Amino acid sequence: NCLELRHASTSPPISSSSPEPKFSELRAELGGWFARPSSVNHGPASKSFLHHFLDEMEAGNIKQHLRKFTRLPHLAGSQQNLDMAEQIRREWLEFGLDSVELVPYDVLLSYPNKTNPNYISIVDHLGKEIFTTALAEPVPEGYEDVADIVPPYSAFSAKGQPEAELVYVNYARTEDFFKLERELGINCSGKILIARYGKIFRGNKVKNAVLAGAKGIVLYSDPADYWAEGVEPYPRGWNLPAGGAQRGNVLNLNGAGDPLTPGYPAKEYTYRTSLEDAVGLPRIPVHPVGYQDALHLLQNMGGPLPPDNWKGALNTSYRIGPGFRDEFNLSKVRMNIHTNNQLTRIFNVIGWIKGAIEPDRYVILGGHRDAWVFGGIDPVSGAAVVHENVRAAGKLMKRGWRPRRTLIFASWDAEEFGLLGSTEWAEENARILQERAVAYINADSAIEGMYTLRVDCTPSLHTLVYDITKKVGSPEEGEDGMSLYESWHKRDNWTERNAPWISKLGSGSDFEAYFIRLGIASGRARYTKNRKTEHYSSYPVYHSVYETFEIVERFYDPSFRRLEAVARVRGGLIFSLADSLVLPLDCVEYASSLSKYASSISQIAAKHPEAVEEYAVSFDSLFSAVENFTVAAAHFQQRLTQLDTSNALAVRMVNDQMMYLERAFIDPLGLPGRPFYRHIIFAPSSHNKYAGESFPGIYDALFDIENTAEPQKAWNEVKRQISIAAFTVNAAAVALQPVAG
Amino acid sequence: NCLELRHASTSPPISSSSPEPKFSELRAELGGWFARPSSVNHGPASKSFLHHFLDEMEAGNIKQHLRKFTRLPHLAGSQQNLDMAEQIRREWLEFGLDSVELVPYDVLLSYPNKTNPNYISIVDHLGKEIFTTALAEPVPEGYEDVADIVPPYSAFSAKGQPEAELVYVNYARTEDFFKLERELGINCSGKILIARYGKIFRGNKVKNAVLAGAKGIVLYSDPADYWAEGVEPYPRGWNLPAGGAQRGNVLNLNGAGDPLTPGYPAKEYTYRTSLEDAVGLPRIPVHPVGYQDALHLLQNMGGPLPPDNWKGALNTSYRIGPGFRDEFNLSKVRMNIHTNNQLTRIFNVIGWIKGAIEPDRYVILGGHRDAWVFGGIDPVSGAAVVHENVRAAGKLMKRGWRPRRTLIFASWDAEEFGLLGSTEWAEENARILQERAVAYINADSAIEGMYTLRVDCTPSLHTLVYDITKKVGSPEEGEDGMSLYESWHKRDNWTERNAPWISKLGSGSDFEAYFIRLGIASGRARYTKNRKTEHYSSYPVYHSVYETFEIVERFYDPSFRRLEAVARVRGGLIFSLADSLVLPLDCVEYASSLSKYASSISQIAAKHPEAVEEYAVSFDSLFSAVENFTVAAAHFQQRLTQLDTSNALAVRMVNDQMMYLERAFIDPLGLPGRPFYRHIIFAPSSHNKYAGESFPGIYDALFDIENTAEPQKAWNEVKRQISIAAFTVNAAAVALQPVAG
Repeated sequence: NCLELRHASTSPPISSSSPEPKFSELRAELGGWFARPSSVNHGPASKSFLHHFLDEMEAGNIKQHLRKFTRLPHLAGSQQNLDMAEQIRREWLEFGLDSVELVPYDVLLSYPNKTNPNYISIVDHLGKEIFTTALAEPVPEGYEDVADIVPPYSAFSAKGQPEAELVYVNYARTEDFFKLERELGINCSGKILIARYGKIFRGNKVKNAVLAGAKGIVLYSDPADYWAEGVEPYPRGWNLPAGGAQRGNVLNLNGAGDPLTPGYPAKEYTYRTSLEDAVGLPRIPVHPVGYQDALHLLQNMGGPLPPDNWKGALNTSYRIGPGFRDEFNLSKVRMNIHTNNQLTRIFNVIGWIKGAIEPDRYVILGGHRDAWVFGGIDPVSGAAVVHENVRAAGKLMKRGWRPRRTLIFASWDAEEFGLLGSTEWAEENARILQERAVAYINADSAIEGMYTLRVDCTPSLHTLVYDITKKVGSPEEGEDGMSLYESWHKRDNWTERNAPWISKLGSGSDFEAYFIRLGIASGRARYTKNRKTEHYSSYPVYHSVYETFEIVERFYDPSFRRLEAVARVRGGLIFSLADSLVLPLDCVEYASSLSKYASSISQIAAKHPEAVEEYAVSFDSLFSAVENFTVAAAHFQQRLTQLDTSNALAVRMVNDQMMYLERAFIDPLGLPGRPFYRHIIFAPSSHNKYAGESFPGIYDALFDIENTAEPQKAWNEVKRQISIAAFTVNAAAVALQPVAG
Repeated sequence: NCLELRHASTSPPISSSSPEPKFSELRAELGGWFARPSSVNHGPASKSFLHHFLDEMEAGNIKQHLRKFTRLPHLAGSQQNLDMAEQIRREWLEFGLDSVELVPYDVLLSYPNKTNPNYISIVDHLGKEIFTTALAEPVPEGYEDVADIVPPYSAFSAKGQPEAELVYVNYARTEDFFKLERELGINCSGKILIARYGKIFRGNKVKNAVLAGAKGIVLYSDPADYWAEGVEPYPRGWNLPAGGAQRGNVLNLNGAGDPLTPGYPAKEYTYRTSLEDAVGLPRIPVHPVGYQDALHLLQNMGGPLPPDNWKGALNTSYRIGPGFRDEFNLSKVRMNIHTNNQLTRIFNVIGWIKGAIEPDRYVILGGHRDAWVFGGIDPVSGAAVVHENVRAAGKLMKRGWRPRRTLIFASWDAEEFGLLGSTEWAEENARILQERAVAYINADSAIEGMYTLRVDCTPSLHTLVYDITKKVGSPEEGEDGMSLYESWHKRDNWTERNAPWISKLGSGSDFEAYFIRLGIASGRARYTKNRKTEHYSSYPVYHSVYETFEIVERFYDPSFRRLEAVARVRGGLIFSLADSLVLPLDCVEYASSLSKYASSISQIAAKHPEAVEEYAVSFDSLFSAVENFTVAAAHFQQRLTQLDTSNALAVRMVNDQMMYLERAFIDPLGLPGRPFYRHIIFAPSSHNKYAGESFPGIYDALFDIENTAEPQKAWNEVKRQISIAAFTVNAAAVALQPVAG
């Protein structure tokens, strides 16, 4: 067979607390158990097809796709977005896919009222509006005649015109409210809040505001968070203009998809809950403003001074409400929100290349098509890359290639409204996906910075990501002949071992249902900023009208070679997953990650040594399970080296074990209060949907436990969660063991 | 290939309400779509091994196994039952299994207090006990010296000594309480109830008593329900002696397994809930008595006369309480219950034969080992048959046979305490079972009557059951040369089509977690009474000390040929499922069953025509889904005829589609309020765990809907359940469609 072995050059040091898992003994016992395939199992033919495939993807084409798909807005539910779906179907068929279909769902979307615009005002003691925020962003040059640019709004905001004093709550994080309520003694109940965007998902901000009893919340982009130093605002640079504001949904779906049909696809016949019972809708008005408008609101705040680290960059002294300055004595803020929830038809585009040998094994590349406005970055930089991936695959097919497994390409709709298109399709196809899906690669925005690669993926994909990036060239000027891997490694070195940084998956994009609900190995790759020096959130013009073709062409990737590199990474991943005889998934790497996560979570508990002793909290079972998993993974990897690759059923069996490894981490009962977050190892943080948390059940049970009113109950829940995690890791170990007896 | 085709001789008439599903058109369009394999896909070698396997099983051996395993009691958690587990392990290894292991769990069991016995008394107005029920059953001849015979008790009864007036509640069914409360105006709150055994699972009786506000409930075996006409009581015949009483658990677990570890295996490290939070424990004392004692209680009842059909067979005029006759003026009943819940180690015995070609596909034969006392019928008539199945399989292996797929044999522990051993093992192995399990065949009591075969199974096993029974001879005298199929058909004719009766699976035995929670195709077979003429519940000595070896040897099966026939049926099923190249599962038969179930459930709704119209309740989506499934199944069956059986991966793919068909009916969200009952087509009735309900979500939503206080809400739930059922059937149809694009 064609497996190569190597010894991993270094292994992460084990820094777990007692009891010391006996990894050293294991290593000794097992000898070379760190051995694993350093590159995946392509036969020579496949190998050369991979080379052709990577070469076929080309910067100029991606530029053309981006140009073509960013001329008009493509808001979910709009005619333009349906037109684009049909165009994509046509072109994917022309490229050579076996079949392409539009798959509709009828989901709850949310739009501003066209005749009754949303805004925020300051009202005086007579109720007169003495200041009102802008109704729209200034439209960038060249787009003045475009119709249907939706103004900045918070999708799924409640309607209403609450009037109240304004309170500044920093980022509206859980810890910000703790500070306000516990340290500063400020009660947000009955107030309208103003929070700056950044740090966490806006839906979490709104949830926190609701929990605090607020009547409404205003969100704004502070230059401290959306401004890169030394860069001009768009169009002269890529910073956010003063009138730009961030659109976005403010749901707390926790993976439910369409708010009216949790757990089931939103087909025509599907029963829909009432709006009162819908999942995740905020019960208060929410609205985003730019920093020009926010300045007026913040300048007029009363109350105490905020902590220094709460101050944004606006040229004013921030204060925490309630109350305004003297000149606005007795004045309040009024929110005027008339946004409507509306059942709307959306369309995914699903394209298929039927696998030649194992058509019942699926590798999925999916990314969204819907954009808040032009979507120059989000999502079309990603959709253009998918388009190029599909084109290149079609080209290969015309040369006689057909992948071993089935490839599915998806252009999701309504991602911006809560990952709706991808989640509904996952719900509709949950049965076949859980039996057949090998991996899901996400294809949202392909670029958000100009520095290097960023990859978030499940641990079993680490090795493949490194392999593929070694086969792709660096897109950076002056790095001719350097691989993307080398460039990435140089720029984003992970000091624990000699390899570039790879993160855990959080959420906020369409992989969520596939990874967190269904347990399909998933990953995403994009070009990003320098995370050590550039501290602004996402990228400055995020979700504004200024996300145009031009911002990419002029600033982010003038040569389009960065997007080309991302296309090759994503393409290389799906190619290898679909075409390798033996699946390029690495369970030893999963073992190593589990060991780190177990160590970290136990260290969080160890901050409460008295309670740990009093309530007899022990992580022994979890460490022991991780040990079992580590041994099982090592033995599995060893058996793999002896695999008879000419025995089709034997190959299928080990591939099935690898495919189902991620599935083994799924608990059908879900996490507490989050039935659609079912992955015991990874979930979006309960405090920030964007961030991934490892052992989330334990983490949430430990969160703020020092302030619980019922410590016995709270620590019991910690113990229950440790037990669930230990069981799950043990079950995953069993799934890797020899299949019989 | 070796598939044969036939046209099904008749098809069930479609009697669905409008809209008429267009089955006739479908039939016309598809031509021979009823064509399906009439016998399964054994190659010639396997065929002859099947013949050897069936022949190998022999009445005399089963008799010996039964004799050996019924000398002592084998209560779950006892030393004797552990000894028996070790004996079984030893013998299964001797028979030739590849490996056999004891798998322990620490679960909540329940035992009487040895020093403080349970009983019921009548107390006079001074509180003096003027009558007390027996503390034990008279021990049958030959067993006088046996220690550790547990007296009759209701396992998991609450402790307590409630004292109250007694109310007779017939079978304590839901409808009995409706009658009492709505028609007879009798309030059970604060009373002690007395109910006769029979018709429904005793746990449901207790649940109903709790809901009615009772302080306790006494259960008794009425001769009307546990007496066969013209038969003497044991030992002269097989009827229940007057002092015999039915043991049994009174839990309402709804599939949770161990009450302290719902959803997770009860391993040493597993977190356990408090007893207060445990699943399914009754909050009131419960106790069983024989009819001799019941007579005293019933003779002294006051209150109105019960409806005629509530009267049992005891020689007394039944009355409904409260109050006793004059001679016991002011007297009450007192329950004296001291039963203890106790965390106890149990042991499953798990034996493996590793599959030769597809070791990662499992066929499971499982039955319990624990018995209330000797278990002559329940479960050892079944365990002896399993033992013979294992012996025969071992014999074949010595002749060089090894099944294509892996065979797993299980001797479950603590079935009598809530299916605990089987459920914990299913929980521990849920991941690998849902990926790998082809079928589960249950092996509880192999005989409960002397008339003919009884089979309950999933629709996809119907055809195989018929095939196998055609290969087994009738065990009845005077039926030499007649097949079991013919004998069964003659005795239990299903008039809708020309085949013997097969029932839906309910629960009350160890298949529950495998079928209803995990969605593994399951079935059970045993010898039974004549259901048209013998109306007593189960069999008279059920769960009494009189379930001995002798009752089987003298009355139920003197030649042991009925048990031999059952052994051959169960053995033939696992052999075919494990060894056939193409799985002998019939999806067209599933389609036909779904169509009948959809029709029946719609007819229940149709009894409320005004509400159906007012709330716009429609079954169209469900009928349409069944139509989709029917077409998909027919096309699948057609493709099967063109299968290239020399292509190992192609065969594996269609087999996987068949294996995962049952899994497609599983909804991870479970049924309302029953998270571990997840099969959308089948669940134990919410009113009687023993009975299977089809489309249970819809059924429960419709139950007693005419008396709901909130009709809009109730009918919305009906609509929601129809939507879930339609989605699930559609998803199952998709799982049968071609696998790509």
